Amino acid sequence: MSQFINAPQHLVTDALDGLLRTRPLSRLDGYPHVKVVFRRNADSNKVALVSGGGSGHEPAHAGFIAEGLLNAAVCGEVFASPSVDAVLAGILAVTGNAGCLLIVKNYTGDRLNFGLAAEKAKAMGRRVEMVVIGDDIALPDLPQPRGVAGTLFVHKIAGHLATRGETLVVAAAAREVASAIRSYGVALDNCTVPGSNKDDRVPAGKAELGLGIHGEPGVQTIDFTDARSVCSLLMEKLGETVIAREGQIMLLNNLGGATALEMQIILGSLLDSALGEQVSAVIGPAALMTSLDMHGFSVSLLPARAEWMNALSAPVRGSSWPGCFPVGPVDIQPMPAGWQTSAVHEASQDELLRRLLNDSCAAFMDMRDDLNALDAKTGDGDTGTTLAKAAESLHGSIDRLPLADTPALLRAISDQISISMGGSSGVLLAILFSAASDAMRAGLSPVAAMRAGVSRMMIYGGAAIGDRTMVDALVPALDELLRSGDAQQAAVAARQGADATQLMSRARSGRSASVPETALLGVTDPGAEAVARFFDVFATLCRNP
Amino acid sequence: MSQFINAPQHLVTDALDGLLRTRPLSRLDGYPHVKVVFRRNADSNKVALVSGGGSGHEPAHAGFIAEGLLNAAVCGEVFASPSVDAVLAGILAVTGNAGCLLIVKNYTGDRLNFGLAAEKAKAMGRRVEMVVIGDDIALPDLPQPRGVAGTLFVHKIAGHLATRGETLVVAAAAREVASAIRSYGVALDNCTVPGSNKDDRVPAGKAELGLGIHGEPGVQTIDFTDARSVCSLLMEKLGETVIAREGQIMLLNNLGGATALEMQIILGSLLDSALGEQVSAVIGPAALMTSLDMHGFSVSLLPARAEWMNALSAPVRGSSWPGCFPVGPVDIQPMPAGWQTSAVHEASQDELLRRLLNDSCAAFMDMRDDLNALDAKTGDGDTGTTLAKAAESLHGSIDRLPLADTPALLRAISDQISISMGGSSGVLLAILFSAASDAMRAGLSPVAAMRAGVSRMMIYGGAAIGDRTMVDALVPALDELLRSGDAQQAAVAARQGADATQLMSRARSGRSASVPETALLGVTDPGAEAVARFFDVFATLCRNP
Repeated sequence: MSQFINAPQHLVTDALDGLLRTRPLSRLDGYPHVKVVFRRNADSNKVALVSGGGSGHEPAHAGFIAEGLLNAAVCGEVFASPSVDAVLAGILAVTGNAGCLLIVKNYTGDRLNFGLAAEKAKAMGRRVEMVVIGDDIALPDLPQPRGVAGTLFVHKIAGHLATRGETLVVAAAAREVASAIRSYGVALDNCTVPGSNKDDRVPAGKAELGLGIHGEPGVQTIDFTDARSVCSLLMEKLGETVIAREGQIMLLNNLGGATALEMQIILGSLLDSALGEQVSAVIGPAALMTSLDMHGFSVSLLPARAEWMNALSAPVRGSSWPGCFPVGPVDIQPMPAGWQTSAVHEASQDELLRRLLNDSCAAFMDMRDDLNALDAKTGDGDTGTTLAKAAESLHGSIDRLPLADTPALLRAISDQISISMGGSSGVLLAILFSAASDAMRAGLSPVAAMRAGVSRMMIYGGAAIGDRTMVDALVPALDELLRSGDAQQAAVAARQGADATQLMSRARSGRSASVPETALLGVTDPGAEAVARFFDVFATLCRNP
Repeated sequence: MSQFINAPQHLVTDALDGLLRTRPLSRLDGYPHVKVVFRRNADSNKVALVSGGGSGHEPAHAGFIAEGLLNAAVCGEVFASPSVDAVLAGILAVTGNAGCLLIVKNYTGDRLNFGLAAEKAKAMGRRVEMVVIGDDIALPDLPQPRGVAGTLFVHKIAGHLATRGETLVVAAAAREVASAIRSYGVALDNCTVPGSNKDDRVPAGKAELGLGIHGEPGVQTIDFTDARSVCSLLMEKLGETVIAREGQIMLLNNLGGATALEMQIILGSLLDSALGEQVSAVIGPAALMTSLDMHGFSVSLLPARAEWMNALSAPVRGSSWPGCFPVGPVDIQPMPAGWQTSAVHEASQDELLRRLLNDSCAAFMDMRDDLNALDAKTGDGDTGTTLAKAAESLHGSIDRLPLADTPALLRAISDQISISMGGSSGVLLAILFSAASDAMRAGLSPVAAMRAGVSRMMIYGGAAIGDRTMVDALVPALDELLRSGDAQQAAVAARQGADATQLMSRARSGRSASVPETALLGVTDPGAEAVARFFDVFATLCRNP
């Protein structure tokens, strides 16, 4: 699979430089061997925090360099520890009078390279402490548990203490935090190491439990059914090892390839588990300590001690730290008053409007097959059916309509159409009548109000004159009616507008926008045809009132 | 491919409830049809911002509900517009005296459903404005460009103005922003819609340019070579349409499936392009408006007007807004003074130590094959070679060593080993001698200092007594030497310790940690064997000083 990289041999330096161009950070002039990102001008009287390790876990660790978090990150190549020299350079770059604390994930390479660098720095007169994080509980028999995403707890709590001006007692505090973290991961698919072929290790329908952050195999492959079951299982395993069952802070880490949608579902499923009920605050869900594009996540728990909560909740800026959020029930509010209640109207009578509605509805029902035939040539063939259905529904409700109150009538027609007529055309016509009702209440004449409704519909629908829609008949007809007040002339304008759509070879909006031009020529747009036929009914009525 | 969901039919509500449990947000009691997330208790005298659309774009839009951003998000099913009823409920839930602004991406369904809901809300006396975002430039002939990630610019700027107490003039400002945004996307792979099989549309080695955020095909499939080329091409296309070439704010959006490492490389590559030089601030890289797990990204540009920069830079809390960062050159600092320079020492003489070093080095060179043979049974068979190489190097430097200054000598040995001896064992021994040097300078006797060095090495290396490593010979020998001062007794203790490793069937650390137990029984650990032989040399020397 391709990846958005330039060359595997300098992908880590490329990535760091990308970050460095947009963050108030610096790097040492030691590329390609020494990849140290740090913040200059930190207070040298405060303990400096240095972390790092192999790359491929972004945003860890360079993304967590900020006031209140790390001072420096020493970055190795993808999944490979940085060298002793690189770590020493990182220590020397940021360590002031107060000394520094190295925060190291428990892998032999990291432990030794950071360890020797620490010894060398001490020999050079620096005060250096080191805390090793081994939070992964997946391999209980391993005397040296791996360090995974729970490391972020240490970054934040130690960072908070260091910023507050604590001395190197920060190291003891960090070790206490480290010893209390429990983490566990699960994935549905392995990661893709840049420049390598992906090992399709996890079979379809399976999940791998207890994997690390370097693509190493998990301890167990299980059948995967759904998020809820796997989350329960994870929390059960964590529950066996947590040092206190009551009150947990949960860090939910996207290993890289889970979607944001999945991560929110996972969050809910974790909180719904038995141990989940003990979780009082959540960090994430977020990609914090990734394993490239691994489709999985890890959960880290830390007892919710007040001092730790306080440190984890303190705001930091400009980093990838996602914040720490208290957990509560879902707050459900009642639906707003007035929602979904159609405008209340009293039925009333108006003979002319009743005849217009009756005759138009009959006409729309009659023209069903004609319109469907036109639509079949340029769309999905249901314009006639859709309109007839709406007309039938409207016709059936005539006795309940406020015929003597035109604004209320227009509103009622809008409501009726929005309920009975599906698709975009139903919404568009509902908008037209709704906006026309408003316009009449604002003082416009019925015709001017209908014209205003059409304008409003055009705004929402996006169709202009010439786009081969009902607008091509509606606009000239209403404009003519506004100008002359003559229904016969309006009907002529509507018919001319509808016929003109036969020559519009390019639908720029609406039903025919994806139909080839040649299929359109010579065919009247069914929406415009319906409008023309309506104006015929209207003109007839006006001739014989 | 499996996904971390519970059931496709309620994945959106599951996801929203996950978020809601950990954020100070509420939802309406309208599940499953009405999915409205909002913040209660917002100031009703300020304009409320409502956005939404289909789901599958998380964190958009519910992740952007915060003071200074949105008031409500109306969420549809995956890639499907919410209904008119749902939008109306959302409007009514948050709209106060100052009215509300709907921020809608330009898709027919969204435009119509939000549009009719707006009309209905107006009929109910609410003040409602709507801005439609069509920032995608991929389909230049489309009269209705799609709305994509550039929508976030509008959320933030309008949110800033609304929070500042501006009236519904916010709508005009939002429209001005909307008209100035230009976006373009590219992907190496399509997205996976939950519950559907993935359409493997993009061939290997190809990239799709100008795709949308719903898995719809791009306008062009190109050969993919590297990040730099595709970034240049994107910026060229954007450059043809931007309304001002000088001064751009760039929003870099992960479409879901690109790794954090790739996104940083992309960021650098975009900034390195011709138009990239005009970018003065960057929002991201971050997953902002995703298309599920699509392996791609989009770039959105907005002219860097001072008022817009100001609004985009204003801090907001508790949302997925990633901040807006000024762009600068990479700040490169010189390597720290003293880095990688071995401790300076003057050569000096001490006959006894010279003999001890000479004899030990000779012994280590002699035992090469024996140690390799032992290691071949329990490891990778190179212990003898590695030690001999270090011994040879040390032997060759004897004339330059500060033999009369033991702390300096220990430091020099550490430096020499760390240069000449590879692998974990080299780092471990370098730590031992380095720490011993420090301990002597702190006032300990040579033997006590060596014992302190071993302790330090054990901390970094993680090996304890009984773990089948050199420690099993080193510790008893040095402890004996400390107790009795008798080199002969120490040599006996070392030999006993080394022999005891034959009975250690379980290596908990070091070279044999992954070797089956049966392969270990009866075999002496080669590291412990080397130590025992060294103490023999030492005892012999002490007998014949």
